[in-house]
Formats: sequence, C-alpha cells, structure tokens
Amino acid sequence: MKSFLEMTEEELLQEKNELEEEYRKYQMRGLQLDMSRGKPSAEQLDLSMELMDVLHSGVDLACDDGTDCRNYGVVDGIQEAKVLLGDMIECNPDNIIIYGNSSLNIMYDTISRSMTHGVMGSTPWCKLDRVKFLCPVPGYDRHFTITEHFGIEMINIPMLPTGPDMDLVEDLVANDDAIKGIWCVPKYSNPQGITYSDETVRRFARLKPAAKDFRIYWDNAYGVHHLYDIDQDNLVEIFAECKRAGNPDMVYKFCSTSKISFPGSGVSAIAASANNLEDIKKQLCVQTIGYDKVNQLRHVRFFKDIHGITEHMKKHAAILRPKFEMVLDILQQELADRDVGSWYRPKGGYFICYEAMEGCAKEIVARAKKAGVSMTPAGAPFPYGHDPKDSVIRIAPTYPSLEDLETATKIFVVCVKLASIEKLLEE
Amino acid sequence: MKSFLEMTEEELLQEKNELEEEYRKYQMRGLQLDMSRGKPSAEQLDLSMELMDVLHSGVDLACDDGTDCRNYGVVDGIQEAKVLLGDMIECNPDNIIIYGNSSLNIMYDTISRSMTHGVMGSTPWCKLDRVKFLCPVPGYDRHFTITEHFGIEMINIPMLPTGPDMDLVEDLVANDDAIKGIWCVPKYSNPQGITYSDETVRRFARLKPAAKDFRIYWDNAYGVHHLYDIDQDNLVEIFAECKRAGNPDMVYKFCSTSKISFPGSGVSAIAASANNLEDIKKQLCVQTIGYDKVNQLRHVRFFKDIHGITEHMKKHAAILRPKFEMVLDILQQELADRDVGSWYRPKGGYFICYEAMEGCAKEIVARAKKAGVSMTPAGAPFPYGHDPKDSVIRIAPTYPSLEDLETATKIFVVCVKLASIEKLLEE
Repeated sequence: MKSFLEMTEEELLQEKNELEEEYRKYQMRGLQLDMSRGKPSAEQLDLSMELMDVLHSGVDLACDDGTDCRNYGVVDGIQEAKVLLGDMIECNPDNIIIYGNSSLNIMYDTISRSMTHGVMGSTPWCKLDRVKFLCPVPGYDRHFTITEHFGIEMINIPMLPTGPDMDLVEDLVANDDAIKGIWCVPKYSNPQGITYSDETVRRFARLKPAAKDFRIYWDNAYGVHHLYDIDQDNLVEIFAECKRAGNPDMVYKFCSTSKISFPGSGVSAIAASANNLEDIKKQLCVQTIGYDKVNQLRHVRFFKDIHGITEHMKKHAAILRPKFEMVLDILQQELADRDVGSWYRPKGGYFICYEAMEGCAKEIVARAKKAGVSMTPAGAPFPYGHDPKDSVIRIAPTYPSLEDLETATKIFVVCVKLASIEKLLEE
Repeated sequence: MKSFLEMTEEELLQEKNELEEEYRKYQMRGLQLDMSRGKPSAEQLDLSMELMDVLHSGVDLACDDGTDCRNYGVVDGIQEAKVLLGDMIECNPDNIIIYGNSSLNIMYDTISRSMTHGVMGSTPWCKLDRVKFLCPVPGYDRHFTITEHFGIEMINIPMLPTGPDMDLVEDLVANDDAIKGIWCVPKYSNPQGITYSDETVRRFARLKPAAKDFRIYWDNAYGVHHLYDIDQDNLVEIFAECKRAGNPDMVYKFCSTSKISFPGSGVSAIAASANNLEDIKKQLCVQTIGYDKVNQLRHVRFFKDIHGITEHMKKHAAILRPKFEMVLDILQQELADRDVGSWYRPKGGYFICYEAMEGCAKEIVARAKKAGVSMTPAGAPFPYGHDPKDSVIRIAPTYPSLEDLETATKIFVVCVKLASIEKLLEE
C-alpha cells in the first residue's frame, strides 16, 4: 500500500471519498463498541471462579502460624500472602506489606502520607512551597490524577523505546530538590507496552537525587501479565539493583492481583526497604487494625504458589493473545505503509498505543465515537489530560469480544486514515 | 459488706493481709489470662462461617442491577449493600458510601483528607496554625491515636451518664474556630457502655460551631450490639436530627460489620449529607477504583436484610450476655459496698469500665499483670494515654472463655481491693 505522504492531493481526495463511504456504512449500523477500558473480560473473570470455592464453612481459616484470619490483627499481612506476592514482585517476603484490594490505594496513601508526614523524617510536603513529580508520558492517567489532586507539579518525561528518557531524568532529579518522585509502569507499560531496558533500570538505581525524600514509584502492574510463555520481556528487579547501588531506600514497588483474580476483590502489596517499611508502618498502625486476611488466605489457597499464578496467567494469555494479535495485525496491514502513525507490539500488559500524526488524536477519537466506538479520551495518558502533540490514543483490547474488537479496530483504522488525510490536505 | 471507707486502719490491715494471701495463691497458679482486647471470641466467629458458603463458583456474582461484582467499578458500593448498611445505620441508602473492611480506616481517611484538602472548600487543616478536637473521656484509644498522629490538639470532655458534658461542648465549639471535630461512640460507648441521652443527641444536632468545617464524628460501632432483645438502649438518629435542626452537613456517621461478621473481613460505611458525600467522592475517585464488591455481595447474600442482622446479633448476645453478667455480678458482689470505685451496667457493646479511686488505675493493672491477667493499659482510653485521675480501667470480657473470665475477674477484684486499701492507708 502506498504511503499517504507520497500521494498527490488528487489521490488523497479519492482515498478520502472511499473512506467516508465506508465510515457512513459503519455509522448506519448503530454500533456500540468499547475499546476504552482496561478491564478483563467476563471470560477472563470466569478463570478465577474457583477462588470462591477454596474457603467454605468446612475449612479452617487459620494461617500456618495459627493466626485466626477471621479475627483482628496482623497489620502487615499474613506470612503466606507475603511469600506469594513476594515471589510475584520478586522480593523477600520480609520486605513486603500486604494491603487491601487496590495498589492504586496504596500509592494514594503513600503520597498522602508524604504530604502530611514527609518521608522517613523529611519535611511534610504540605509544608513546602513546591513539590514536583516526573511523569513519563504517555502514562497511566490515575497516577497523574493522584499527583494533581495533591497539587503536585507534574513534569513530562518522554518515553523512549527503552523507557523514560534517562538523560533528562538524571539531570532533573540531581538538580531540583523539589522533585520528590517519578511514576513508572516499568513492564508492559500503560499505554505503550514498553518494558524498561536493563540499562534504564540500572540508571534508575543509580540516580543521585537532590531530594533525600525522592522515591521511584515502581508500579509493576503487569509484572506477570505476559501474552507469550517463552517470548517474554524481562525487567531487571529494581529493589535488588538499588541495594547494589547503595540506594536501598529509593524505591517503592507496588503490585496487586487485580488483573489476575478479580479486580477490586484481590490483594495488593508494597515492597520496600526495611527503613521505608518502618516509616510506613508507623502510619499504617494508626490507619487500620488490619486488612482483609480472609481474602489474603483465599488467594493463597487458590494460587498456592508462584507456579500457580504463572499457570493461571497462561489462561489469561490464551484469551488475550488473539485479541492483541488481531488488533496489531489490522494496524500492521492497514496502517504500516501509510506513514501516518506508529505503535509498539507489546508482549504483555493491557494496552496498545497508537501515536497518530500531530494534532489528530482528538479528531480520531471523536470520529470513532460518532461511529459507535468508545475510546479512552485523547489526552488522558498525560498530566492534566493534555497531550502537547495531540497524537496519543490508547487502545484497550481486553474487554470486548473478539468479534466486536475486530469491528471496532476496523472502524478505528478508517477514522485514523480519514483524520490523517484531512490533516495532510490542510498542509 | 462493709465499706472500706468506714474501716479502721486495723480493719484495713487485716483485710489487706487476707487479700495478699489470696493474691499470692493466684500468682502461684502461673495463669495467662487476657481481658485487654475488644475482640470477638472464636465461638462468636463460628456464627458467621456460612458467610464463606454463600458465594461459590456455581453462583452468579452479579448485583440486582446487573453489575458484575468481579470486575472494576462502582466506587461508592453496590446498591444492595447500601440498603443493608443503610438499615443498620438508620439512613437512606442514598446517603451512604460503602468502603473497605474498616470504619477506622474511613475515619483516618476523613481526617487525612481534611488535613490536605479541607472540608467542603474550607482551608486545608495543614495550613492552619492550630487544629483541635474534642475528646469525650474515657473514649476509644484508636480515635485519639488518629488525631494525635496528625498533630491535632485534643481537649478532654468529661463523660456524664447522659453522654459528653454538653454545656462544655456547646461553649467550646461556639467560641473556638480551631475546634474542627468531636469523637463520639454514642451507643454502648467504648469503654463505659453509655448511650447518649435523647437530650444529648438533640443538643449535638443544634450545635452552633464557630468553625464551618466542624464535624461530629459519630462512630456508631455498637449500634446493633445489644445484649438483650427487649431491654435495649435507644439512640436518637443524629443525621435526621441534624437535618431537622438545619445542620445536615454537621455529622459523619461511621459503621462496619467488624463485630458482626469477621473483624477485618467485613464491610464498612460512612453516612452523611449529599454535600459531604460529594466532597468525599471527589477524593475517593482519586484514591481507588472501588472497594471489594464481592465481599459486599457476600455480606448481602449472607445477612439478606436488617432482620437477618438482628437475628445474627441475638446469637452473639447469647454468647456475650453470660460473660458481661458474670463480670458485672462479681463486681457488684465484691465491690459495690466498698465505695472505692464505680461502673455502669451496659446493655450492649464490648466493654465494662471500672473507675477506681484516684491514683489507683496503673497500680491495679500492674498488679493484675503480675498475677497473670492482661488488662488494657491504664490511661489508654485518654488522649496521649494520660488519665489525669489515673482511675479508669477498661475491661474487655468478650474474648476469654467464661471460665477464664471468671478467674480473671476475681483476680482483678483482688487487685482493686489491694490497691484501694493501700491508697486509703497512705492517706
């Protein structure tokens, strides 16, 4: 297929007419398709239904150490759950606190605590004139919403194929003690599906921040969410790397079982150094008597161990792989030669990210909407919802059926082509 | 029996010798008894084991409105749970947000949010020079720990048989705009077991606080925790009363199923006015995608409705009533005539509170410890752990077996008598 960039105006107009015809046909079908949400499908949720069976009235709800999970106590999580999530997050169970149902909630609480109480004895951020966070973009909108909520200034850091632009990160954190953190989704990143390179992780571990209370917020949301069994991305484990670099306190790692068992009804965890955990527990003991140990036990009994999680994730992959591959194949076939956008081919995670020509994203999303396809709003993957180039579109292929997804992707492609041609004709 | 106050020195010394003999006998038994913790017993927890059976892989985990509880969404709780907890907290389901497993966590989050973001548009408390809370004493130590954690100054308010001293409360809140809240456990209060009188609640609803962001923190932890079926305390419902008084925004109500199903694995809720809920949800949407809906559904399917909760609480009462009555009977028999302390006879809740002669509480707790009986530390029911009169001792009769509780109470009585006599001999 010919690149749009090489077409004459006449050829573009001809192409445009045909696309508009196609677009109208889709419109007339009155479709309601949804590629906006990073949610598992019902078929995926069915994989975990036996989670509801492992505990029943005939089963002892006690831990190996005798703790009755039904009663108060154990603020930092039962040992079995620490072992399970420790294996998942590749950390020693001693470096873990098990929380409630949401790692986002842990991140919120972590920022909130830093605002009111500082970090390991530092000045509470609410007492400072300015607090800044680095935000690799495009990124996860809910991260940015937390920092915005607390009035933290956000600085965009471009994502490269290897992860955040580390030259920029190193320079900024070394010279500005108002920079207190950086949001990272280091594996199968939201939304691009990029995994940080070994070099990127090592440079993270060796950062020399001007602020002693600077922390790397390492949200390993998709750590075990591979699409393939052998052909997986590898992410260097950052906590060990930070220890080797002499910076054990510089990172918080977050994870949860949200997209493993049931979103909202899983368990979440933070992993960090002993110093950080001590700091966190001071507050945690005030905040709660303890999280839901019965649900922790339920997850341990269901998955048993990290092998159980791995086997379970293969079942998710079997459902997700055809969806990702279909979307990627259609993009490849319809858009690869057109030279009006780019994307990565992720090996895991929950998203595909289409980077359109500058100034086209909003238009594409609006067009898709009018043809019955909901997409994540353009701009959402950026701080303050502002995509400076108006080019990034997040595609969420997990929730719709394969059939709906195919139609939605074809409509999306038509919208991309139309918006791109109009842009080219304007120029 | 003769009052200690009417005894001669010789009689007191004689009594003391006999008590010391009795005390030594207990010591020699090497007991390990625990009256320190407000925890349900294993027998009580067994009452809820069928909670583990109502959901299983053969059951549809969808709400009446079709919401799949297994997936993301519904930040403020499923409708069925709002109805159930609404009936429990005596509020319209529309005035409720269902949270996670802990009402303490809601209270912490409420204070934390007020620190960083203020209340319905008020200045964030962290920007103010002074923030104060009124603390009816004795009260719940974990309330005071939260306010202490945030550097909020705490002012003791004496508890009367009718609830907090409302003359003092009215005067203070009307004249000091640094006073932002008051902690209340209005029914079967922790630790005294007092239920606020109708007049007290009506005066609460009619407060004229100098601070617009003053809120009543109404922790109705024991709202359905009656010991008797007919002979129950009645608490005027404060939210309706606040509405009638033209102050609908002045109260937050908190509740949970912690001591109804499984502590730590239940559901909790806040009830408040539409204005307050809007304020709360602004932050809640940033903090989480949603709480554990599967567990909400589990509780709804288990209890069905408020009648189900009522019947369930009767089973708890059947276990708790003999424990409370035994402790109270021993106190009555051994101490009522001695004139060295006082207590209420609660009709519900989790505690009995012994008020000893001034300067005796620490000594009594220490003596009990040395005879193998753990009590809540003296001072714990006061801000900063400081009981100005050193007289209040919280007794938690729920966790031990009836047999252990009897021994523990008898030891406690011996310790009370010994400490009291020594005090009298000093004078």
